[in-house]
Amino acid sequence: MSETEFIIEPGRQDIIIKRVYDAPRDVVFKAVTDPDLIPNWWGPAKYETVVDRADVRPGGSWRFVSRGDDGEEYGFRGVIHDVAAPERVVQTFEFEGAPGQVSLETLTLEEVDGKTQYVAVSVFQSVEDRDGMVQSGMQEGASETMDRLAEIVEGR
Amino acid sequence: MSETEFIIEPGRQDIIIKRVYDAPRDVVFKAVTDPDLIPNWWGPAKYETVVDRADVRPGGSWRFVSRGDDGEEYGFRGVIHDVAAPERVVQTFEFEGAPGQVSLETLTLEEVDGKTQYVAVSVFQSVEDRDGMVQSGMQEGASETMDRLAEIVEGR
Repeated sequence: MSETEFIIEPGRQDIIIKRVYDAPRDVVFKAVTDPDLIPNWWGPAKYETVVDRADVRPGGSWRFVSRGDDGEEYGFRGVIHDVAAPERVVQTFEFEGAPGQVSLETLTLEEVDGKTQYVAVSVFQSVEDRDGMVQSGMQEGASETMDRLAEIVEGR
Repeated sequence: MSETEFIIEPGRQDIIIKRVYDAPRDVVFKAVTDPDLIPNWWGPAKYETVVDRADVRPGGSWRFVSRGDDGEEYGFRGVIHDVAAPERVVQTFEFEGAPGQVSLETLTLEEVDGKTQYVAVSVFQSVEDRDGMVQSGMQEGASETMDRLAEIVEGR
């Protein structure tokens, strides 16, 4: 299994996450956009992910809820600027626990020799917001999420 | 009439535009969100602005067309993440002439002593995209736009 690469440079407003999946692009695109598959990989495994809304089209919107063993719920939501299957999704992202802090996510999938290069760029409204996201332990959660996605698309 | 302030720092991914309007916040909010008023100030005066779509609500979308004297048309569009009247709008922005280059705009209106502090933060997917927008002559167009908005809201 490949590793997840994070590019987080000081003073910048973005977080870049890269991963190579040993699966065709169509398979990765379907896994990241299909509301039936999203709960299988989205977020750390210790939370159940409930897809409240996933209207995956330009002008659509999404909302996922992470539910812990203790019944605690965390909501995440955004609007979808663009979807170009099977290569690109551009959407906004907001954790409802930090209202008003919104980021713009651009996911690009490129097929290289039968594998898929996944690149997700998240840009934040300020360097401080970006740094806060890093300090919240984002990397650990995202690594686990990317590993879970690998299990789905690589069928292991 | 006050001046428009631009904050464009080297190596960053954002453009910040500030302006103080001598008008109540409600008046400024209405001017920037009302589809009937938008054509009166949006974009440089040499273009006619046609509001193709302005569904100003969370999850809504917008599209404006700038039409030149020569009949040439330039489309702009995005989706609306959040609208909190009369203080905040968060939306995406894309010039259809540069497809795939999307920015996230956060407009905040704050009322101070009967005047309104307008702050618009645009974050781009990369420093290169941000620099390209600056080099396209954005500042000249935005200054004119902000002056036109002043004429509307200050009633001069």
